[in-house]
Amino acid sequence: MHGRLMKKVYDALLVHEQNKGEAFFRRLKRKRPLFVCTIGTAETGKIPGISAAGKYPELTDYTPPADVELLLLGKCRCISGVPVTPEGIPTPALITMSALRLAKIPALVVSGGLKINPCVPFLDLGGKLGSDIRTGKAVDNAEEVMWRARIAGENLSQTADYLVIGESIPGGTTTALGVLLAMGIDARRKVSSSMPGNPHELKIRTVEEGLRASKVEFGALANDPLRAISCVGDPMIPAFAGLVLGAADKVPVLMAGGTQMGAVLAIINALNQDVLDNVAIGTTRWIIIDKSADLKGIITQIADVPILAADLDFSRSRFKGLKAYEAGVVKEGVGAGGAAMAAMAKSGGSITKDTLLREIERNYERLVAPK
Amino acid sequence: MHGRLMKKVYDALLVHEQNKGEAFFRRLKRKRPLFVCTIGTAETGKIPGISAAGKYPELTDYTPPADVELLLLGKCRCISGVPVTPEGIPTPALITMSALRLAKIPALVVSGGLKINPCVPFLDLGGKLGSDIRTGKAVDNAEEVMWRARIAGENLSQTADYLVIGESIPGGTTTALGVLLAMGIDARRKVSSSMPGNPHELKIRTVEEGLRASKVEFGALANDPLRAISCVGDPMIPAFAGLVLGAADKVPVLMAGGTQMGAVLAIINALNQDVLDNVAIGTTRWIIIDKSADLKGIITQIADVPILAADLDFSRSRFKGLKAYEAGVVKEGVGAGGAAMAAMAKSGGSITKDTLLREIERNYERLVAPK
Repeated sequence: MHGRLMKKVYDALLVHEQNKGEAFFRRLKRKRPLFVCTIGTAETGKIPGISAAGKYPELTDYTPPADVELLLLGKCRCISGVPVTPEGIPTPALITMSALRLAKIPALVVSGGLKINPCVPFLDLGGKLGSDIRTGKAVDNAEEVMWRARIAGENLSQTADYLVIGESIPGGTTTALGVLLAMGIDARRKVSSSMPGNPHELKIRTVEEGLRASKVEFGALANDPLRAISCVGDPMIPAFAGLVLGAADKVPVLMAGGTQMGAVLAIINALNQDVLDNVAIGTTRWIIIDKSADLKGIITQIADVPILAADLDFSRSRFKGLKAYEAGVVKEGVGAGGAAMAAMAKSGGSITKDTLLREIERNYERLVAPK
Repeated sequence: MHGRLMKKVYDALLVHEQNKGEAFFRRLKRKRPLFVCTIGTAETGKIPGISAAGKYPELTDYTPPADVELLLLGKCRCISGVPVTPEGIPTPALITMSALRLAKIPALVVSGGLKINPCVPFLDLGGKLGSDIRTGKAVDNAEEVMWRARIAGENLSQTADYLVIGESIPGGTTTALGVLLAMGIDARRKVSSSMPGNPHELKIRTVEEGLRASKVEFGALANDPLRAISCVGDPMIPAFAGLVLGAADKVPVLMAGGTQMGAVLAIINALNQDVLDNVAIGTTRWIIIDKSADLKGIITQIADVPILAADLDFSRSRFKGLKAYEAGVVKEGVGAGGAAMAAMAKSGGSITKDTLLREIERNYERLVAPK
């Protein structure tokens, strides 16, 4: 399962369903993508030890808005600097932003529900901040948010040759685990983490408390995806799933993320399997080599969808804060892997992992470690 | 100045700056547009007698959201039926929706500031409901809204071959008059009205009260467009102007509207004249033949920008509510004229004023006068 042994197209690794994945990726070559970043926040993300998407729990409210400000502006507005983990490792939005700028890919922000709005334009779907899933009442208008996202997806699919959809929501792997378990996909110890030590026990305990509170047993909501989101999901999931459902019958959609894509895929699979032919999951090599998680083990329980991974390698970076990605910190988020692969595809391969690293380092120097 | 004597391309009349207008329109042929509807509401729209964009003044809060629901869904959600004038004449969004659907043109909604949000996805720019301009404090964050709109325009310009931007804001011709006078463009008795009798005296009195309250004389803000909006404008104007400023250096922008386009053009002209080569005004024949207003007389005071008009003709319609357009009711709005011309251009002329009327009548029958 190591990156170096896998077949590549440009610097994109064909991780799973290689033939379908290769065909999918070749369809994107030289085409014009739109990058969509779906954001949300939920109180789940503030449970101590759950998320590293912020220096401390209260700051996680600012991480998604700051991430998308970085994408659109090249710098944040609602916080100084950029979002960092408690150890000071910078947000993967740095990768996404560098890829989008290098390849001149336009971006659109979609909110599924936030506490703090970003200081840049964003598509409002009428969603609200998510609650702590331990209440069993995580999202209170999931159906409406998904319905509106579908309308948006239908329109956006007519503005680009394909969509790359990423996400930013602190605590998102825990809520993904919640949705997966409620829908009967055994993702225990399989979801990834932005932290080097993956707090599986804490995540499982948190989800089980939510399932108990909502009186939902493992698999009970396999055919009721909206209720799974409402009980133990988060506001990003219905927005993301709705966008895919609206767009993927017309254009290819690269679902850009790690194990959270499992939860989104489970929702889509339960509502309209027909669109899955036009869908692939795009992540980073760091997710693939993560021994504490198992993206493929989640996805194969759901549908035959290819997994692609950007072969990013920061081991030779000049900066400690980027080298840390090789030690398993952060790994993915804000559609970093998908954006990197879209940049490769759009440029016909002239943007490589090396040119990406140089641009990421340039932005790191400018934003994180100014001389 | 009568439509029948004017040169046409397809069913688009070349009203002003004919050569530039023809060249502009030919660039759009068979190309892929994005329709953007910029909406806002302001207390100015509730001054009795100012606006016919709603059955009665309090309902005008619902008109822009209902208009964009109609565009995206083919029906309204926040009200039953569709927005109508006090006489029951339906919104021009009926024309826009019919044109967009016939030509399969995607649409995006942008809010400059609203009291009631639409029940469909919309791009939020952080704007707020506008105040009554008689206070002299019409819009309280015009600069921020315009800045965010510019970011949106830059990104949207990369998703389409050209943009068609329309608007919906009740009372918009009065606030347009306010901005025009503050900037030294004599638009007295030149702005149009959605009512058959144009209440020029009431509009002038309202604007003069706002100018007095903000201590602004005619022309005093010729070089301070943001202050003109802040004092006597409305929240749609900075959103619309920002979108054009962000997009028109990359792609053609058809500014779809009537005399309100004068105010938007004045703002753009004061901030960046360079983009004006890529801009045209697209309206309806009803605005051009309106004896109570003078679009050309406003535009020629500002810049050499072509004016195009959709040669719509409802005189033979089966429906009274559409025939009323020929008597000078409504005339334009929600980018009706621009959307109609974009449909003609995208279809290479196979969508004509006749096919449009048939589709509009079909939708009228479905939504306004069901059998």
